Amino acid sequence: MITIIGFGIKPKHLSLEALEALKRADKIFLETYTNVFPPRFVDEIKQLVGIDNITPLNREALENNLEEFVETVKNQDVVLLVQGDPMFATTHVNIVLECRKRNIPCRVLSGISIYNRILASTGLQPYRFGRIVSIPLLMKGYMPESPYLRIAENIGNDLHTLVLLEAVSHDKFLSISGAIDYLLRMESRFKRNVVTEKRFAIGIARLDYDTEYIKCDRILELRNIDFGPPPHTLILLADSLHFLEAEALVELLGAPAEIKRLIK
Amino acid sequence: MITIIGFGIKPKHLSLEALEALKRADKIFLETYTNVFPPRFVDEIKQLVGIDNITPLNREALENNLEEFVETVKNQDVVLLVQGDPMFATTHVNIVLECRKRNIPCRVLSGISIYNRILASTGLQPYRFGRIVSIPLLMKGYMPESPYLRIAENIGNDLHTLVLLEAVSHDKFLSISGAIDYLLRMESRFKRNVVTEKRFAIGIARLDYDTEYIKCDRILELRNIDFGPPPHTLILLADSLHFLEAEALVELLGAPAEIKRLIK
Repeated sequence: MITIIGFGIKPKHLSLEALEALKRADKIFLETYTNVFPPRFVDEIKQLVGIDNITPLNREALENNLEEFVETVKNQDVVLLVQGDPMFATTHVNIVLECRKRNIPCRVLSGISIYNRILASTGLQPYRFGRIVSIPLLMKGYMPESPYLRIAENIGNDLHTLVLLEAVSHDKFLSISGAIDYLLRMESRFKRNVVTEKRFAIGIARLDYDTEYIKCDRILELRNIDFGPPPHTLILLADSLHFLEAEALVELLGAPAEIKRLIK
Repeated sequence: MITIIGFGIKPKHLSLEALEALKRADKIFLETYTNVFPPRFVDEIKQLVGIDNITPLNREALENNLEEFVETVKNQDVVLLVQGDPMFATTHVNIVLECRKRNIPCRVLSGISIYNRILASTGLQPYRFGRIVSIPLLMKGYMPESPYLRIAENIGNDLHTLVLLEAVSHDKFLSISGAIDYLLRMESRFKRNVVTEKRFAIGIARLDYDTEYIKCDRILELRNIDFGPPPHTLILLADSLHFLEAEALVELLGAPAEIKRLIK
């Protein structure tokens, strides 16, 4: 039996149900590549569960050798621990289906995701978000168009966009400034007049960690800020705001008062 | 100090952080009107936290007398417990802002929401969802157009829609059949050819409760099913599916095999 558990953004987000499953498990694996988090989280989890061993698992084991992994663990009570909500990564859907094919019991315990936490931090309303967009690390001229076009689609529908930025390791990640540069370059190519320097956005670094830093301002201002180590996340705001959203952005995040002009 | 805590869909979803806050609290209120859940949840929460008293709180106290509520509790360590994720209801954003205005410390601990849990149950990908839509209880000819139009917008962008259906009490709620009837009536009025009888959808009743019932089929089939007591939720699928989504719907939910024709 495999239980895929999202521990949330930080270890204290673990649910009581997850804690029970972890205490009962024969073996605990920790997936270390779909997210980047502080190494001390591993010790915190060990302490909370009361165990000594957690085995790190990399992309190789879970993607290239999935069948082998599933076969190896099928006769044990195994937990695969993941940061955030496991279902944000298709890798984990794949594991569920692979188990189903082989009649190996598999269940998923959801974790608190970045989506839950940005709602709490920003006061933005879930009904005002369009599709979630992710931007991969941009390397050597690799410039995909779809993230820009999807954001443009959301803005065209007067919706906010949660933009997840790829982080491969603590020093190899797409920063908020890097993402903004990419978006402005796409803007100058497609000219949809949506991701402009004057648009309001929210830069979020290390959400829920001790060094969390969040800033709501115009894109032009955010681009010049060094947000520090990953993970970084960006929210592009819609053309209009609900009055409670505008008030929350000013009161909770110190957004410029002129953002209230967006109230519809 | 007020801590607004989402306990998740069921009590065992409570996070370790939330449990600590609950154990420390001088007084615990339970918000009983933005969600409908089994009465036995109250006893389960009492048992998990190890307390005897939880005070139910209705709409009157939190919306009409919010200032009074905030003033009454400001000198205590108070928890306001809510099902799901508190930030899905604007009521709770309002409380955060009211506290901020009065310099009363207030924080929000996110809970696992229906959005997290439908990803785990269905295998659908978060990147394929458009904006979340809610349909209110339809009474005496009250037929708002916006839920239909927003779903049509999502489908136009080839995106799934999570449709939350209002439930006021255990016997006063919008059912899956009722929501489908409404959508088909709007379809015959606006003729966008989006919410048609042949479209695939997922009906979800009492997600994560012992009596959970989930069915993926064409709208016409779902309309004829009695899904039983609330809460009910509906997912309208996009025109196309990722192959992993189609496989998950067939394998996990027993969707008709012909749904695989939607794979893009």
